[in-house]
Amino acid sequence: MDYSKIPLAQTVVTLCKWHNIEHVVISPGSRNAPLTIGFTNDDFFKCFSIVDERCAAFFALGIAQQTQKPVAVVCTSGSALLNYYPAISEAYYSDIPLVVLSADRPKHLVDIGDGQTIKQKNVYGEHVHFSANLKLDLRDEAKNPKQDEVPIFKSIENKLERILGLQKDIQAYNESEIHEALNQSALHSGPVHINIPFDEPLYDTVKDLSIKPKPYKLPNRNQNIDEFELRPCIDIWHHAKRKMILVGVLAPNSIEDKWLQELADDDSVLVFTETTSNLHHPDFFPGIDKIIAPLKAEEFKALQPDVLLTLGGMVVSKKIKAFLRQYKPKHHWHVGPHNANDTFFCLEEHFRVRPNTFFEKFMPLISHHTKSDYKRHWLTVRAKRRKEHQRYLETIPFSDFAAFDLILKAVPKQSQLQVGNSSAIRYTQLFQLRKDIKVFCNRGTSGIDGSTSTAIGASVATNERTTFIVGDLSFFYDSNALWNNYIPNTFRIIVVNNQGGGIFRILPGHKNTDNFDTFFETKHTLNAKQLCHMFDIEYYSVADKTNLENELKSFFSTSKKPRLLEVFTPSRDNDSILLDYFDFIK
Amino acid sequence: MDYSKIPLAQTVVTLCKWHNIEHVVISPGSRNAPLTIGFTNDDFFKCFSIVDERCAAFFALGIAQQTQKPVAVVCTSGSALLNYYPAISEAYYSDIPLVVLSADRPKHLVDIGDGQTIKQKNVYGEHVHFSANLKLDLRDEAKNPKQDEVPIFKSIENKLERILGLQKDIQAYNESEIHEALNQSALHSGPVHINIPFDEPLYDTVKDLSIKPKPYKLPNRNQNIDEFELRPCIDIWHHAKRKMILVGVLAPNSIEDKWLQELADDDSVLVFTETTSNLHHPDFFPGIDKIIAPLKAEEFKALQPDVLLTLGGMVVSKKIKAFLRQYKPKHHWHVGPHNANDTFFCLEEHFRVRPNTFFEKFMPLISHHTKSDYKRHWLTVRAKRRKEHQRYLETIPFSDFAAFDLILKAVPKQSQLQVGNSSAIRYTQLFQLRKDIKVFCNRGTSGIDGSTSTAIGASVATNERTTFIVGDLSFFYDSNALWNNYIPNTFRIIVVNNQGGGIFRILPGHKNTDNFDTFFETKHTLNAKQLCHMFDIEYYSVADKTNLENELKSFFSTSKKPRLLEVFTPSRDNDSILLDYFDFIK
Repeated sequence: MDYSKIPLAQTVVTLCKWHNIEHVVISPGSRNAPLTIGFTNDDFFKCFSIVDERCAAFFALGIAQQTQKPVAVVCTSGSALLNYYPAISEAYYSDIPLVVLSADRPKHLVDIGDGQTIKQKNVYGEHVHFSANLKLDLRDEAKNPKQDEVPIFKSIENKLERILGLQKDIQAYNESEIHEALNQSALHSGPVHINIPFDEPLYDTVKDLSIKPKPYKLPNRNQNIDEFELRPCIDIWHHAKRKMILVGVLAPNSIEDKWLQELADDDSVLVFTETTSNLHHPDFFPGIDKIIAPLKAEEFKALQPDVLLTLGGMVVSKKIKAFLRQYKPKHHWHVGPHNANDTFFCLEEHFRVRPNTFFEKFMPLISHHTKSDYKRHWLTVRAKRRKEHQRYLETIPFSDFAAFDLILKAVPKQSQLQVGNSSAIRYTQLFQLRKDIKVFCNRGTSGIDGSTSTAIGASVATNERTTFIVGDLSFFYDSNALWNNYIPNTFRIIVVNNQGGGIFRILPGHKNTDNFDTFFETKHTLNAKQLCHMFDIEYYSVADKTNLENELKSFFSTSKKPRLLEVFTPSRDNDSILLDYFDFIK
Repeated sequence: MDYSKIPLAQTVVTLCKWHNIEHVVISPGSRNAPLTIGFTNDDFFKCFSIVDERCAAFFALGIAQQTQKPVAVVCTSGSALLNYYPAISEAYYSDIPLVVLSADRPKHLVDIGDGQTIKQKNVYGEHVHFSANLKLDLRDEAKNPKQDEVPIFKSIENKLERILGLQKDIQAYNESEIHEALNQSALHSGPVHINIPFDEPLYDTVKDLSIKPKPYKLPNRNQNIDEFELRPCIDIWHHAKRKMILVGVLAPNSIEDKWLQELADDDSVLVFTETTSNLHHPDFFPGIDKIIAPLKAEEFKALQPDVLLTLGGMVVSKKIKAFLRQYKPKHHWHVGPHNANDTFFCLEEHFRVRPNTFFEKFMPLISHHTKSDYKRHWLTVRAKRRKEHQRYLETIPFSDFAAFDLILKAVPKQSQLQVGNSSAIRYTQLFQLRKDIKVFCNRGTSGIDGSTSTAIGASVATNERTTFIVGDLSFFYDSNALWNNYIPNTFRIIVVNNQGGGIFRILPGHKNTDNFDTFFETKHTLNAKQLCHMFDIEYYSVADKTNLENELKSFFSTSKKPRLLEVFTPSRDNDSILLDYFDFIK
């Protein structure tokens, strides 16, 4: 097998393998050639080549979102790694493991006027769980003496290393930093950065490894919980007549059905879910806004829980956040292996385990005999809202709202749904999705910037049929996502094109000022047709209900290329149709 | 006039006006609405709306590159401002003034699970000259008491402010931070970041300003130099028989002709320029690589200068860097108002003034009577190389090299040339450009990421006819640059499409390995035709010499739309044609 001749490159690649990093997304460059050589010559790794680093990192994010294992992104020096940053911040707030491997110049060539050079050290600040700044592999130079451009300077640097009393040799230091970074990525399920200086020549290869990393035992990452930690909560739980479970972003199949059934059977428990919670039971409450939006002060009080148990990541609904901040629960406990957000300013406990682990310990300790009409009352409200929801759909003209209804109903069975941010995810939350559909959305930073790339990455990682629904601004923002040789033929994109940031129209004020169209709604007349031709994707478009219904009948059938359906909706009516909805369902 | 009701928004907008920031590039969002309202309602500002923040920031960079005055970029909270980062780093290393105005949530809503929220404070690390983190405008709340979502938390925050003994009131603090940031941007001619928290409601307006910023005197930014600082250099200069002046990136008309003439007349002085130096004289040496590449060790010694005087920013030629690092000058002095790079590890003096200011003081102190055949000898070499250059062009088939020759000759008189990074700028350096063409390229970080956006921004700012030459990877990377309503009809794009990162083929090794095409050259079959249709740009394409010559005759004529010419070159021959060139001209 061919390896890079540079020991540091061999070390990085070897340790990535030890840590079972399988997927590697590489952007072209020269400085990172030693890593590219290492990863692409070893069949253990599934390597992908993506030119635009912004897309590359979101694509990697999509893979890691599905595999829940660290994915590596590899780039050259300079501004390349800054283009990763939007995806890094999304990974940080969505608890998705990403490992940035950025090639760098040797330290003495930074900030002295060399090209493609920035201050790469710690460049992601607090948005990574660990930042390893590896040291230039001096062994390489000792072994391969060559005309050094700046011998004096380097020898000073070497001496400094010794004077500073760094006892470990550089190889040991680098190994330890790499292990630590890869561990932290897996442990926190989040992004880490390994910055790797390489000196020229960058392209030499050897047939045998010249390194022998020290054996390393991967730490046990099982998290557990002791009964005594739960004790204080049991009493509170038993006495609480109103318990609310609010579920944010959660991977499918995170909680066993028997626990869900137990919760659903409890009269004092309301389980509020979002489409991104991937949790289903006939007695749960999906569509939070549908319940909350029309409530008056008196009704809010009736909904206010004694105990709030939150599971999963980010919550989409702004309305439930505002509600729970104003009508605070007496107790808020969060269950989850990573960070716990004090979203309602009353967080009391954080059980740092996976929900299943929690329920395995918790459920046997509680009974479900608390007398309460909490659930019964709100199930009645829910039934009424659902009826009105249906009635409303029959009254409205073709619009974003009407389009989402049809589209979501048509999503194939047993498939994956990826949703873009802003209007797409907000509309999606208003509809009840089938249990067989897995739903994902970049809610960490809720950016419109990388949804398409993420969706493609996710579909590549799972081989599941994937439908991606996105608004026009978000789709055009990430158009380079389609510059990708790996899009499966089963991949389906639906762009709901209302010719601008229609969601801004539901905000108060300014709708009719001169500047609104340009600076808020950013109106445009673009469509996705040419991009589809450019990137070899089958293109379909519709602009009314009948055509949408017809297209949806065949859109998901087997095809030899990925497909995109563009749904044009009338930009001027969407906002009033959405606002009227919440009035109507009261 | 309409103003945002929020005093902090009024303050930011008012102070930007005081500091004479004229151009404001806004990306749509909700959190930044108070700023958008402020800027777009005041005719003093020229406002632009660009959705993709990566493009928006490079577009702003292009404006500032031309006006040499700070340009503001305005975005919403969350990952939006991370998309600015590639342009920020370019601005930092190219000494271009940019002011990031990022809207943020109030501090107590960061990291508690709210959407579109990241750790925005100091997010650009050391790549900005100043980072102002403004405080939430409490006066606003005092005046407009409203249902606060989290009164307890905020009141603690307020108390803390007082406990910490911050004597100035928040308004004074914010004004001072804004002034400091805007001053630093102008003083360093570089990027700064002002992070601005806003609380809801965000869209309210008022008819009168509710703030009265304290009068503020803009500091005098004239830099000067005293004769005594120059004294030590005069002697050295007189005794040196070989003086080299190396000019990096420099704005046109930076140095008066009389100084250039004096330098050209001196037998002991070689002036090495690049196309991006924008300095011309018949006795100067443009095309550094043409001189240096074919030299042998003996000849390098003959070229080694006693004194090296560098002017301007980044130097493109890697060959001159390698040469001067190995054959160090005895003395290296840099002249320039900003940072001085110790590129050759022997920097002795930095005269922190503009080149004109330096020469005004320096020239009267020196004479030009040093006997030397330094210039004469290298002018002979130059003449020989130029002849061989011409001869080589007659021998080669159609290729990148041949295409650049034809394209550069056709660039209109008195116009601006913007060049993309990687192969485009490297080829351009091999040709001698006419004096009437101003040349620009993002050499701060030398990224391929935002060249098109920069070129469009520059053309918008100057109203000069602008030709933008770029390679295919760089062009497709920044395809969203064309999502821009401001592209002048005179704007011309020439994409030299060799179907991948052809420049990697000139690197040693791996050209014929299986992975090369995918991971290094990243071969593709894309063309720019559909993008042109999508964004309403006239499209032309050629694939041979005759057609290129013909197209170039009419390509620059007046038109009702911007135009793009795609020049397809054979990907397999370009590398050997380039490498053979340096052999041929020996």
